[in-house]
Amino acid sequence: MSADDRLPPYYLGIDLGGTNIKSGVVDDAGRPLSSISMETRAMRGPEEGLRNLAEAGRQAVEASGLKWEDIAAVGLGSPGTMDLKQGLLLDLVNLPGWVNLPIRRQLGDLLGKPTILQNDANAAAYGEFWVGAGRDTESLVLFTLGTGIGCGIVDHGRILEGQHSHGAECGHMVIQADNGRMCSCGATGHLEAYASATSLVKRAREALASDKSSVLNEIEGRGALTSRAIADASSGGDALARHLMRETARYLAVGAVCLMHTVDPDLVLFAGGMIAAGPSFLEDIRTDIRAMAFPTLARETRIDYARLGGDAGFIGAAGCARQKFRPPRA
Amino acid sequence: MSADDRLPPYYLGIDLGGTNIKSGVVDDAGRPLSSISMETRAMRGPEEGLRNLAEAGRQAVEASGLKWEDIAAVGLGSPGTMDLKQGLLLDLVNLPGWVNLPIRRQLGDLLGKPTILQNDANAAAYGEFWVGAGRDTESLVLFTLGTGIGCGIVDHGRILEGQHSHGAECGHMVIQADNGRMCSCGATGHLEAYASATSLVKRAREALASDKSSVLNEIEGRGALTSRAIADASSGGDALARHLMRETARYLAVGAVCLMHTVDPDLVLFAGGMIAAGPSFLEDIRTDIRAMAFPTLARETRIDYARLGGDAGFIGAAGCARQKFRPPRA
Repeated sequence: MSADDRLPPYYLGIDLGGTNIKSGVVDDAGRPLSSISMETRAMRGPEEGLRNLAEAGRQAVEASGLKWEDIAAVGLGSPGTMDLKQGLLLDLVNLPGWVNLPIRRQLGDLLGKPTILQNDANAAAYGEFWVGAGRDTESLVLFTLGTGIGCGIVDHGRILEGQHSHGAECGHMVIQADNGRMCSCGATGHLEAYASATSLVKRAREALASDKSSVLNEIEGRGALTSRAIADASSGGDALARHLMRETARYLAVGAVCLMHTVDPDLVLFAGGMIAAGPSFLEDIRTDIRAMAFPTLARETRIDYARLGGDAGFIGAAGCARQKFRPPRA
Repeated sequence: MSADDRLPPYYLGIDLGGTNIKSGVVDDAGRPLSSISMETRAMRGPEEGLRNLAEAGRQAVEASGLKWEDIAAVGLGSPGTMDLKQGLLLDLVNLPGWVNLPIRRQLGDLLGKPTILQNDANAAAYGEFWVGAGRDTESLVLFTLGTGIGCGIVDHGRILEGQHSHGAECGHMVIQADNGRMCSCGATGHLEAYASATSLVKRAREALASDKSSVLNEIEGRGALTSRAIADASSGGDALARHLMRETARYLAVGAVCLMHTVDPDLVLFAGGMIAAGPSFLEDIRTDIRAMAFPTLARETRIDYARLGGDAGFIGAAGCARQKFRPPRA
């Protein structure tokens, strides 16, 4: 984008991940002017992590060609449990020392800018709503499919944060009340225990015990059994892999239908690593949703893949900062 | 309430049921000034039904001691599928002729007042939010337990209607993705198929086949097996009845947890015939919710019975009319 096309004010988005920090500057129309990535090194504790967040932000501003004073506000997207009203990071899962961190204030102090904190999946959903696959909708639900299942809900431009910052923790909806699988959170029967990349691999391992003809046996033998490998084997015609992908699509459809019968959005989006499985996987999900949803919704609710890829998090976080801190008549 | 305590403006609420119409006048503080009930006679078709709705409204105004011109607006709560934006009743389940009815306009014309249409469970949820068990909350979820399971969600004073008027159809969340029971709607695994009064009776009949010692056998023998009879037998110490009630509580807890992990309200309420089962049933639901929900929510989300009883529908419908048509500076 040429400097002339840029629409001020500008916002800095930072997407904190367990492994990498992504950051970029976004203009007032939601267009990213830069996008950088660096290691989080979260294992070294929150002090170094915070310095890295600030450094990532500075690099993103530098890469955008803007000056630091051009940035109106900062949005931080984070995994883990948090208190959004207080700007507290309560627990960054599995990372030592990242507990009860007043991260919004700390990062705001380091950067000297008005700063907001948002859940990473909520931020990604807002990014897709603002300038991604949902830019023409009034409300959407986003599922991010990875190790776990994240979710974000945007209704008429407002993120459904919930009263205790647990809005849209939809990976932990119960979809199997009796005899449910164990979820990573310790409870049973959750969507995540059926349809995440991790649980797909787990279900594959269980199925391999009784299917010696599948190519997945050989793949598992060399320690390469991933959700991607299963998707590839399915595309390649392996019957077991195809069955597993089909099952995954159905569980995701169940999750989608639960939200269609609850939130009733215009659009349900799927994002994250597993959408590399391609258009046929999406078509399977759509088929199952249409079979399960109420007729009006089966006909009218759009089901699609997300469009912003790995940039959704920082774009959405920047969008949240804009929503809160946009200068009047800017 | 004495005439002096009444706070104008006044709103007329009408709650359309398959059997009865309830109607009442509500003042600006949500206090009912009257409450009347009459037969719907819906089987005689929508023309007579509409006349009865209007007549119920007139009787309610008369009973309130107000004049017709004191009424600022009318709210109608209805079961069935509808298009809330258009004010259309698409299908009043199982009632002949009640199809594609522009009921909001028709009733408004009959009564000569600004009129809104709302889903009955949404209206009841709004009533509880406005002046009932949720009057001190910012957001709540209401389950109404009867033949089916209705649901309403109010978030920061706004009913979650959804983009296709299917918001909060939470009786039709899938809680059993594999080997689910058949729901009244024809799909499988829905909450309603496990936890409604009807499904409780159905589960009881199935269980009776293998438990001849339960008093429920004798009750079934004289054709008196109802959810109420099962609740009473449970209170009386019958082991099978107790097991069935306990199971029902757990399924309701599953439904509640799904919404706590999605909408994350301040408060989850249960209403309808089944809450006659009393405080121990509520305590069972609470226990199971606490065991299943995320720790913060298990600790902080309030779980309670609704308080407005059968008046919630017309009070809430009147509240919706107030929300839309309240005169400025009234």
